[in-house]
Amino acid sequence: MKPADALLPQGAAHAVQVRGVRGGRPFAATDWVAEEVPIALEYNGISHAVMLATPLDLEDFALGFSLSEGILDSRRELYGVDEEASADGITLKLEVASGAFMRLKERRRTLDGRTGCGLCGTEKLSEVSRPLPPLPASVPTARTAIARAMAESRALQTVQHATGAVHAAAWCRADGAVQLLREDVGRHNALDKLVGAMARAGIDGAQGFVAVTSRASFEMVQKTALAHVPLLAAISAPTAYAIRTADAAGLALVGFARDDDLVVYAHAERVAL
Amino acid sequence: MKPADALLPQGAAHAVQVRGVRGGRPFAATDWVAEEVPIALEYNGISHAVMLATPLDLEDFALGFSLSEGILDSRRELYGVDEEASADGITLKLEVASGAFMRLKERRRTLDGRTGCGLCGTEKLSEVSRPLPPLPASVPTARTAIARAMAESRALQTVQHATGAVHAAAWCRADGAVQLLREDVGRHNALDKLVGAMARAGIDGAQGFVAVTSRASFEMVQKTALAHVPLLAAISAPTAYAIRTADAAGLALVGFARDDDLVVYAHAERVAL
Repeated sequence: MKPADALLPQGAAHAVQVRGVRGGRPFAATDWVAEEVPIALEYNGISHAVMLATPLDLEDFALGFSLSEGILDSRRELYGVDEEASADGITLKLEVASGAFMRLKERRRTLDGRTGCGLCGTEKLSEVSRPLPPLPASVPTARTAIARAMAESRALQTVQHATGAVHAAAWCRADGAVQLLREDVGRHNALDKLVGAMARAGIDGAQGFVAVTSRASFEMVQKTALAHVPLLAAISAPTAYAIRTADAAGLALVGFARDDDLVVYAHAERVAL
Repeated sequence: MKPADALLPQGAAHAVQVRGVRGGRPFAATDWVAEEVPIALEYNGISHAVMLATPLDLEDFALGFSLSEGILDSRRELYGVDEEASADGITLKLEVASGAFMRLKERRRTLDGRTGCGLCGTEKLSEVSRPLPPLPASVPTARTAIARAMAESRALQTVQHATGAVHAAAWCRADGAVQLLREDVGRHNALDKLVGAMARAGIDGAQGFVAVTSRASFEMVQKTALAHVPLLAAISAPTAYAIRTADAAGLALVGFARDDDLVVYAHAERVAL
């Protein structure tokens, strides 16, 4: 119900006419709603997946998704991304190194004509949990830095301010200053976009932490650890599986990070309370 | 941080020891966190998909997912569900009618060894939007009924009360009385569980509406319309694609349904403001 911010990126939200009731009184108004677009990913001409996402920062999304899913080992394996819009959505055409493409084809071949769901292309329980890299020891992050990161993230969420419908993931320096922030209707997409943006900027994940304006699921922890980031701070609750995964990976998992409050669910030695 | 409700279903949440800061003061406490388990679906012995879900109401989930995805046309095509737990998660083994299994195999064959992601098994933009059934005309739903449904849903969320980490989807009579409620760490899973529970109870979707404690995405609208329910009320924002889909399907889409307030984003003629 808020007016669109002047900084609202084009294509991220639309004005719609609505009716409703507020404080017991009917009203008619213009409202801003977040866009949600089917995004297809193609690798060297082969269709791979379709997701629903906010049509912003799609090059970051293409790279971050590919890294998070282990399709690419590094950003150097991505030669280029073309965007092709159609009435049905947007196709991201990735040109990737032949080694990465061979691995992807091999993975698809072993899936033997089957489809996956929920977890990307996963259809067996044994494929869910992936080996995570060891996370380096780090100077404990001050709780004031986490509070600062949450406050700065809130201020930077232009699409969220206009629509109330999107999540954000932020890369924060050790002192809590937000360096990069990406928004998406899907929290996993927002984190994938951030991972892509970090890779493009050549950021060393050990030098700060990730803050997200959502809950912390298993997949959020896995993506963060795969990006070599030793601390994930979420505004809301973690799941038990997320905590076990963070425990095993050496990742500090912070939940309910609101104002100056927070709860540490794993590796409290990485947080200075 | 709340104590577990005496009614909290077993396996849905765990107690963990945490440290944190509240009101500027460090504390150590026992916290309750929602479980999140990889759930594999097998149809007549063939692996299909793995999702992360709350390990509750899994028979409802198996049926509702199969109906939402169009794998089953009706609950009569599902002969039985066996649950098999392992260290990696839970496998749901569905025994389905041969007609349904043939359709599933055919669909998988045409996917030609490719995997899907995000949208179940989807890898082409043209597969995203499915034909939705025409929704029957209905008596307009009173806004007081929607407010009642939201209040009753809140009271019934036992896992959410303990953990703060799960969504709920509720089937509500036309007067707003909640008849069925299902919880899950994933909002799409919660709705699939509800769809399954409604099918098992033989409920006619035209006789009430669905209330969800989350945002309303395209997929939430699609699942609701496929369940022949003419109104979806969400506690938070819809996306633009959700609104377009609801417009086309004849589904009333209500967002920001909080206390007595609400906003109608599509088919306002189905809501008495």
